[in-house]
Amino acid sequence: MTPKYGLFELSFAGPAEGNPFAETEFWAEFRYQNLTQAVPGFYDGDGVYRIRFMPQIEGVWHYETHANVPALDGLAGTLECGPAAEGSHGPVRVKDTFHFAHDDGTPFYPVGTTAYAWTSQEPEIVAKTLDTLSRAPFNKIRMSPFPKHYLYNTNEPPVYPFAGGLKPGRDGSAAVDLPGMMMGAVSDDYEFDFDRPNPVFWRYFEGLVRRIGELGIECDLILFHPYDRWGFAGMSREQNLRYLRYVVARLSAFPNLWWSFANEWDLFRGRTVEDWEAYAAEVVRWDHVQHLRGIHNCTRMYDQSKSWITHVSFQRIDYHSHVELTAKMREQYRKPIVFDEICYEGDIDNGFGNITGEELTKRFWDVTVRGGYATHGETYLRDDEVLWWAKGGELTGSSPARIGFLRKILEDCPGYIDPRMGNRADWDLPWGMSGERFYRESRSPYGVMRTEYAEWMLCYFSFARPRFRNFTLPEDIRYQIDVIDTWNMTVDTLPGTYSGTVRVDLPAREYMAVRFRAAN
Amino acid sequence: MTPKYGLFELSFAGPAEGNPFAETEFWAEFRYQNLTQAVPGFYDGDGVYRIRFMPQIEGVWHYETHANVPALDGLAGTLECGPAAEGSHGPVRVKDTFHFAHDDGTPFYPVGTTAYAWTSQEPEIVAKTLDTLSRAPFNKIRMSPFPKHYLYNTNEPPVYPFAGGLKPGRDGSAAVDLPGMMMGAVSDDYEFDFDRPNPVFWRYFEGLVRRIGELGIECDLILFHPYDRWGFAGMSREQNLRYLRYVVARLSAFPNLWWSFANEWDLFRGRTVEDWEAYAAEVVRWDHVQHLRGIHNCTRMYDQSKSWITHVSFQRIDYHSHVELTAKMREQYRKPIVFDEICYEGDIDNGFGNITGEELTKRFWDVTVRGGYATHGETYLRDDEVLWWAKGGELTGSSPARIGFLRKILEDCPGYIDPRMGNRADWDLPWGMSGERFYRESRSPYGVMRTEYAEWMLCYFSFARPRFRNFTLPEDIRYQIDVIDTWNMTVDTLPGTYSGTVRVDLPAREYMAVRFRAAN
Repeated sequence: MTPKYGLFELSFAGPAEGNPFAETEFWAEFRYQNLTQAVPGFYDGDGVYRIRFMPQIEGVWHYETHANVPALDGLAGTLECGPAAEGSHGPVRVKDTFHFAHDDGTPFYPVGTTAYAWTSQEPEIVAKTLDTLSRAPFNKIRMSPFPKHYLYNTNEPPVYPFAGGLKPGRDGSAAVDLPGMMMGAVSDDYEFDFDRPNPVFWRYFEGLVRRIGELGIECDLILFHPYDRWGFAGMSREQNLRYLRYVVARLSAFPNLWWSFANEWDLFRGRTVEDWEAYAAEVVRWDHVQHLRGIHNCTRMYDQSKSWITHVSFQRIDYHSHVELTAKMREQYRKPIVFDEICYEGDIDNGFGNITGEELTKRFWDVTVRGGYATHGETYLRDDEVLWWAKGGELTGSSPARIGFLRKILEDCPGYIDPRMGNRADWDLPWGMSGERFYRESRSPYGVMRTEYAEWMLCYFSFARPRFRNFTLPEDIRYQIDVIDTWNMTVDTLPGTYSGTVRVDLPAREYMAVRFRAAN
Repeated sequence: MTPKYGLFELSFAGPAEGNPFAETEFWAEFRYQNLTQAVPGFYDGDGVYRIRFMPQIEGVWHYETHANVPALDGLAGTLECGPAAEGSHGPVRVKDTFHFAHDDGTPFYPVGTTAYAWTSQEPEIVAKTLDTLSRAPFNKIRMSPFPKHYLYNTNEPPVYPFAGGLKPGRDGSAAVDLPGMMMGAVSDDYEFDFDRPNPVFWRYFEGLVRRIGELGIECDLILFHPYDRWGFAGMSREQNLRYLRYVVARLSAFPNLWWSFANEWDLFRGRTVEDWEAYAAEVVRWDHVQHLRGIHNCTRMYDQSKSWITHVSFQRIDYHSHVELTAKMREQYRKPIVFDEICYEGDIDNGFGNITGEELTKRFWDVTVRGGYATHGETYLRDDEVLWWAKGGELTGSSPARIGFLRKILEDCPGYIDPRMGNRADWDLPWGMSGERFYRESRSPYGVMRTEYAEWMLCYFSFARPRFRNFTLPEDIRYQIDVIDTWNMTVDTLPGTYSGTVRVDLPAREYMAVRFRAAN
């Protein structure tokens, strides 16, 4: 019996001659009552074909294969789907327009990190990355199957995603200089067959996707990126479509998967919006789980109104204006807002990776209190050039502990955090609200004020550091008040409960927050 | 002999009966060759009338008075204007579109502070303020002749600018609550005659304007503000026009004067743009020195394209976006940009006054490197409620010393700082340039780059804190390089001179700057 959200895999012997990756068409229909799902199969080398399926409804499913070769066509059977395993909540979906939940309704608050090419490193580094992730506060990681050719990150991967590799006698050093390479220029040192995925690579890679799933981490899988010298960024449209179908066939049945169509879609040379739309359509067509889909920008936003885009995976475009715009961006896009690049904690010379842990933590809080989500990255210069954002390894920064503290605050709220609306939203202080909302009216010199309250409210002072703040609570509801030091990670609950006007003393330090929890 | 920019004052006996302030029209023409300047006179009480004139051209001037009373009409004479006194550079003017210089061409780099009502305090506090100013780095102060009714600032002034005051048996406590008062509501405890300025007050006030001039400080005189319970913010248009003409007559001949038509023009109840335009026209008409003129906003910008506005006196409208927009604002307004409110160093509960010294210093640098100017204020809560921004007194913050350090950097540059333009303006690093500019072309993967350089260049890292930065200098010019720690106020000059590509090591701390000075 396959548990709900579990992996049901079929394997069959089939033709190995020619190029089965390109020539064999193979897929199955899975039927539950009047629901039919098409699931692509894939060639795993050595004459072995597989189909992977994630049942999302308990009960008996029937399947039947289809293929353009007789050996794989018309094979039929059943599977029984039982209850989900303990702790298995299914893939993450959009919830309540701006948020996320697992398929079974369990809220998911993305607290992500970034290590683009961690799977392309030597085993010792990969092991260290897994160890770090097992102790880190992150539940999502941005990563790509492709190796990366970029600053601090030019090494060969141990294994390639396609057949081929270095030409005899070459070592990859014929690579052109950065930044030319960033845009998909190809080194002459390699020879690949982009029509033949490398099953050895993909078994290795999907093992790591499964492994981080066991650690409770979603794989935000970057399907394409332009930081390339191998030619992967320059494959033809047909090759890209076949690659996508292969990845979808292998990985869709994994629950901890998000599709990120690009890191910086706008940096690809010669790739049009039509190309991207075709790639999206291919994934939408073949992904029977319908995992989350986003597309990440460099300086130009992709049209986020496209229906295939489930959430906004945003890199700040303006160096200064970003997280404080979260509430506006929610209204603009009506989708979850995930700030997947807001500068990393680190000290490199590049403007995308040299802010302090304090600054990055502040940005996380500024996003959170406005109803959005943020993603971490770390770029400290190291003698060994193993920078977390590129290669994984170890984290040495000060923000992860604070981000873990924030995650606990998030997980404590009764639902999700949405920004406070209306005329009592202070001009200098952002408020997040959660749980039941209600309104009270009061008179002021400006007229009648309609003030929104909630059973759970959080305000964040960011760089402001008052010695106290006066708050106005409803007269008829009593609140517990927590003074939160987001940097020192302390929660001081004031004695008693409060209603009406309350003066809350603060330590005149930056990075403070105050939380209000209805006590009756 | 009157020195150039000096004060030439005439006094005459005239009618004292009735209301000479309102009824006596009195002015003079000052002629130098074919130039004629009209200069208003004013009544100084006790039957004494005065005319104050600042000659701005050396040589012999002739004057003749005009009045609607025979005793003051047709009085004529001459004055000889000699060279300016040592250290006397004349009033400040706009220079090179975006900057300031004294009338004699000496550059003026405004480094201002704010103490709105310091002249309305008890003598001990006024003396302390003057002592503080004598040791502070500021060369401009925003201040108003009117007392102020606002948070931490509700005391009576020792003397009022108009005849009248508290009604018998009243003490001012009948004032309505804030914030109603902010908008010009009037307490019933007072009775003033707004048609009669109080000469005692104005002699006191102008003495303080003169005194700060001796300290090298420009008086950025706020002519109106809405934080009032006395009725000063609610005078009629006719009364306001007469008040303006009186102030102009008394003060225009002072060199260290700027006209700031309002603190927060948009908060006045029932005052129209037409009103403001009429007030501006009155000052333009009667100010023979044509001092600088600005009008300061709260949440809504006054139309800064008006020709009478010499410079943009800006309060940030967006809580987050402000100083980094300096270069854009320059292009938008084509006038000097002075950020006169960007949040004060302090720890009060209000969002306009609770940032750290680090944050305020950072904002100063972020403005400066983009070719604008900023103004300081301090709002630390004190038991005696003498907050510098309102009452003056003493400064306890950490930013003034750093602002003084910045002022030295400014005064060191060969001219003014303007932002670097063109395609080599780094996206993550603002550059200010000064002195001679020139261009070099280079090839890059993106095409030919035309890069702008100058004999003096300054970049500021703000919250970014890289461990190093690579810079590209012209191959044919050698630069001295200074690594500047703007917070710790150190300048480390690297040994030797540099051209071409240079790696500059940095301490991976926030608030660093690097300065390049052409050595040949």
